[in-house]
Amino acid sequence: MTLLQGLDYLSVFIFALTGALVASRAQLDLVGFLFIASLTAVGGGTVRDLLLNREAVFWIANPWYIAIACCAAVLVFFTAHRLENRRRAIDWLDAGALAVAVPAGVGVALSLGHGPGVVVMMGMMTGAFGGLMRDVVCNEVPLVLRQGELYLTAAFAGAVTALLVRWGIGPAPVALLACAAVTFLLRAGSMLFGWKLPVYKSRPPRNRI
Amino acid sequence: MTLLQGLDYLSVFIFALTGALVASRAQLDLVGFLFIASLTAVGGGTVRDLLLNREAVFWIANPWYIAIACCAAVLVFFTAHRLENRRRAIDWLDAGALAVAVPAGVGVALSLGHGPGVVVMMGMMTGAFGGLMRDVVCNEVPLVLRQGELYLTAAFAGAVTALLVRWGIGPAPVALLACAAVTFLLRAGSMLFGWKLPVYKSRPPRNRI
Amino acid sequence: MTLLQGLDYLSVFIFALTGALVASRAQLDLVGFLFIASLTAVGGGTVRDLLLNREAVFWIANPWYIAIACCAAVLVFFTAHRLENRRRAIDWLDAGALAVAVPAGVGVALSLGHGPGVVVMMGMMTGAFGGLMRDVVCNEVPLVLRQGELYLTAAFAGAVTALLVRWGIGPAPVALLACAAVTFLLRAGSMLFGWKLPVYKSRPPRNRI
Repeated sequence: MTLLQGLDYLSVFIFALTGALVASRAQLDLVGFLFIASLTAVGGGTVRDLLLNREAVFWIANPWYIAIACCAAVLVFFTAHRLENRRRAIDWLDAGALAVAVPAGVGVALSLGHGPGVVVMMGMMTGAFGGLMRDVVCNEVPLVLRQGELYLTAAFAGAVTALLVRWGIGPAPVALLACAAVTFLLRAGSMLFGWKLPVYKSRPPRNRI
Repeated sequence: MTLLQGLDYLSVFIFALTGALVASRAQLDLVGFLFIASLTAVGGGTVRDLLLNREAVFWIANPWYIAIACCAAVLVFFTAHRLENRRRAIDWLDAGALAVAVPAGVGVALSLGHGPGVVVMMGMMTGAFGGLMRDVVCNEVPLVLRQGELYLTAAFAGAVTALLVRWGIGPAPVALLACAAVTFLLRAGSMLFGWKLPVYKSRPPRNRI
Repeated sequence: MTLLQGLDYLSVFIFALTGALVASRAQLDLVGFLFIASLTAVGGGTVRDLLLNREAVFWIANPWYIAIACCAAVLVFFTAHRLENRRRAIDWLDAGALAVAVPAGVGVALSLGHGPGVVVMMGMMTGAFGGLMRDVVCNEVPLVLRQGELYLTAAFAGAVTALLVRWGIGPAPVALLACAAVTFLLRAGSMLFGWKLPVYKSRPPRNRI
């Protein structure tokens, strides 16, 4: 198993947990858990593989990914009632999944020899799209857009870090680990300590609509 | 015309009817009818074809599909006011389209030699994605997620039935017909008699959010 | 630079401006501006390229598109507070982007030798999908569906115009310019003078739901 596959497996498992937890908030049945968990788990990587025109989408070439997502869904179906606070569990698991999915996207784009713009976009999209589909389909406010938190910014900083490490000292695995670490630290810091970038604030115009 | 093409034609026509009916609830003009009907009609099969990397998306290789969807849209534009209850017509037509689209997805995945996990996912996605796009774009509550009804579960059971028949006695056409029958019966039984799977119910935790 | 590339560049820039303005209404930070602007800018063309199975998605083959979208996002981030009325600026810029993106879709489909149904669908999808993704992700009411305005109809008329010119007198550039002109005039006329098609109105049934 290569490092890139390992990242895909891990992000599929963690994203599937968040998908199943959102399904539990929407009071779906077991098949609904399986579907939303799978959609969340493979959504970002699927967009990546379609856009990069890889010979096959990763979870179609290898059935284990769907099997892992289904295990995660069943696990959550029978244990979610033990959680004190599902919203907070979703946020933290999603942060973990983001920190694994961004390097998964960056790594694939790098290995195909793409330029920096595409590498950064693939990192952000692989990280963000699974959760975005989950939230749009289940009618939650997308985490991606929650105000005053670092989310896309954490993914962006992680992807840029990977590029910088790659150009400087580093072999690919070091770059991907640095990417994961920076993404997770920024996202976690944002949730714990309220770190954020300045958001757009308009000066009050005379006739605002 | 092969059986697989026939299933595609039929599901395109019925899904287009549901799309046009949803467009009539959103008070769109004729071109809006054409667009939403086409989107609903080809949405699921398009996702299937992109994911399975077929040489061409089915409705781009063959212009008749779009023509059929447009005929359905025009038909609904001029006759929908005769319906007593459009919501109910949409539900029943959607059930019929689901029962045709699931075997269309299963059949294509089987004919390309994919494993059981991919076959089941393709059945569910081909069945569910057209209606899901229709409902997300038109701001209806997605039928897929309506609580206490079998929808994804019906698609899932149909796809599994097809696999079982294929492994046991059966030639492909029998498997696909069995798939359609199981899907439709479960969906219809759910609408008529309230059949459902147990949904996730959390034990009330001490500090629920 | 070919005419088709020029249309892609221009529609990317204008759509990115609209995406960044919508991001400003959602109070996102700078990275959020970059992401929504890029999503809006390349969304329609990406769907077009995936469906038509082009060898590479346009913005992955050529990194300048993302760079242009990012410039537009930064520009809006620092100047949007000067606008008196952002909603109106979005509507007009979106009209301009639509009038450029529809011929961009039509031109690519024509150059690949597709039939009239596919050409018209590609024009409408390239024009409409970027703005649709922007509005769905940011929770705005989709412009595509705003009642009593020509939007899809303008795109449709533009695409049909291109086909008629192409079949009649014309070389491809003339057809694409005519397409842009018709799309923009119909959309602008709709915003300024309330031009519209008759929308679907149901006769009041006895038992309407």
